[in-house]
Amino acid sequence: MKNKRTSIPFRRSSWFVAAAATLGLSLATTAASADEFANYRPFFQPIPALSPIPAHNSMTEAKVELGKMLFFEPRISASGVISCATCHNPALGYTDRIPRATGHDGQVGDRNTPTVLNSGLFGAQFWDGRAATLEDQALGPIEADIEMNMPIDQAVNRLKEFPIYQKQFTAAFGGKDPIKPENMALALAAFQRTLMTPNSPLDRYLAGDVEAMSAQQKRGMKAFVDRGCIACHSGPALTDSNFHRIQVPGSTDLGRYLVTGKEQDKHAFKTPTLRNIALTYPYFNNGGVDNLPEAIQVMAREMLKIDLPKREVEDIEAFLHALTGEIPEFPVPSLP
Amino acid sequence: MKNKRTSIPFRRSSWFVAAAATLGLSLATTAASADEFANYRPFFQPIPALSPIPAHNSMTEAKVELGKMLFFEPRISASGVISCATCHNPALGYTDRIPRATGHDGQVGDRNTPTVLNSGLFGAQFWDGRAATLEDQALGPIEADIEMNMPIDQAVNRLKEFPIYQKQFTAAFGGKDPIKPENMALALAAFQRTLMTPNSPLDRYLAGDVEAMSAQQKRGMKAFVDRGCIACHSGPALTDSNFHRIQVPGSTDLGRYLVTGKEQDKHAFKTPTLRNIALTYPYFNNGGVDNLPEAIQVMAREMLKIDLPKREVEDIEAFLHALTGEIPEFPVPSLP
Repeated sequence: MKNKRTSIPFRRSSWFVAAAATLGLSLATTAASADEFANYRPFFQPIPALSPIPAHNSMTEAKVELGKMLFFEPRISASGVISCATCHNPALGYTDRIPRATGHDGQVGDRNTPTVLNSGLFGAQFWDGRAATLEDQALGPIEADIEMNMPIDQAVNRLKEFPIYQKQFTAAFGGKDPIKPENMALALAAFQRTLMTPNSPLDRYLAGDVEAMSAQQKRGMKAFVDRGCIACHSGPALTDSNFHRIQVPGSTDLGRYLVTGKEQDKHAFKTPTLRNIALTYPYFNNGGVDNLPEAIQVMAREMLKIDLPKREVEDIEAFLHALTGEIPEFPVPSLP
Repeated sequence: MKNKRTSIPFRRSSWFVAAAATLGLSLATTAASADEFANYRPFFQPIPALSPIPAHNSMTEAKVELGKMLFFEPRISASGVISCATCHNPALGYTDRIPRATGHDGQVGDRNTPTVLNSGLFGAQFWDGRAATLEDQALGPIEADIEMNMPIDQAVNRLKEFPIYQKQFTAAFGGKDPIKPENMALALAAFQRTLMTPNSPLDRYLAGDVEAMSAQQKRGMKAFVDRGCIACHSGPALTDSNFHRIQVPGSTDLGRYLVTGKEQDKHAFKTPTLRNIALTYPYFNNGGVDNLPEAIQVMAREMLKIDLPKREVEDIEAFLHALTGEIPEFPVPSLP
């Protein structure tokens, strides 16, 4: 029953006729528009098959394969056991499901690990947007002393010890001495751009499958728009990639102010994506809330200055579950 | 050119006739026996498709799937970021490729992480054999304070929070209250028994493919037998699963003595498997040696009281590379 927007003749049962009459729908409409929430579709954008690819980092197979290896590579951490995949764990929606990131020597950071799923769609990286692109972001956690804690030159030297990395970097980039920080960042970014999650119920609904979302999820979609969540959680990743001031319970984090030094950025954080939000708990910059209903209530109170009725919270929660797409599945690469 | 032991007619080229004459071989022999090292085959055992399965732990799909989830599950560690797969990393031959295991809060243990590949074939677990079976072994690292550092009752309670674990434990074990330590151990063991590595060059050679190993690898196989390595590195996993006294450079570890208290077990360690040994560096109980040639020399000196000529070390190294099988490939499971 997919793609009901097409003009393929649709055989209406007498059940359908009766149901449509009950709903007050004109039988002249197609099945797709036989959906009382159809007016809400234009507020949403389907997930693209690919995120934008910068002209200077073409997404070749060699580069993606290398980036995948680097993503799982623990030898570029000081302890030798922490990789990107430790906190951006494929088993856990490419995040870690603990309140705040835990890295080198068990140190606990200040912020919740964001998912890298669909991160190619984001217009800014990190909670505070201190990197604009995946390329700019890639090397930060390797060097951060509470994360992987390895100076990038040491990481480069470590990789140079392995002939397979010589081969893979050459295949991906060519040139003399291709194992260098810039190329690590390019490869990691290219790999991360493959981590898209297509075919969520919302996307199937937007493509015309009126049955892809439940009635409750559709009510939640309506509330999500009517209440104004869509103001910031917009676009294909349900984030405007912009910064908004918010102090969630328990947080004193100055957020983007630490990057810009501007008064208006105090306690401002990037709007997080809502794609796969059911998988990427706990929530907020401090990971302070571990369930969706509470997170929805906090957001409504802090950003929209409303107390949502319980029923509406439940509807929005159901809708957020419709944002879970297909997680990329591949075997962990064999490292040298 | 597989399975040349069969009686399927083999078309001999004039090249073959000339080569056979050079080698002094009778042309009445089959191609398979046209291998001057054929006498060495009986010393080795092919890897079985399945390791032995204990009668009390039938290997059902539900159990294996649950065990896989638990293997990748970091929420059964105190930090929330360490799972079995952290040290037994699928990207690194199911070990960690650092000298000694690094666990909770960056603490470094006394011993090198053994691979779990083919561990269903071992007659004893851990370097000191303090567990006899995979079931006995499974919960140790969860509780060990320098590894995952979580009392098993807490781990059980953590799992009980997730409906999917209620469902999976029920599917695997049935009964009331199926989430319990014994069942965790059974599931983890069942999953680990699937981690076999078939089709190594040695196995293909043993199956009749005379070209599966290079001439150097065959010479190495001969030296491995003639020099006596085979005395302990025997059987399908190339380990006798027995304990032998050895103090590799830098080690003062009392080994099995710490388990038995017996004088003759001082500094005794289980013979490690040689399957996939090229992938599971560094070597020895303290991870003190990071390359095969040196490891081979140390073993020859310590256990066989010989100084191997360089050429023979190289041949044995080549042979050890023939023990690398196909690593299991599967997507990381999605956890709740």
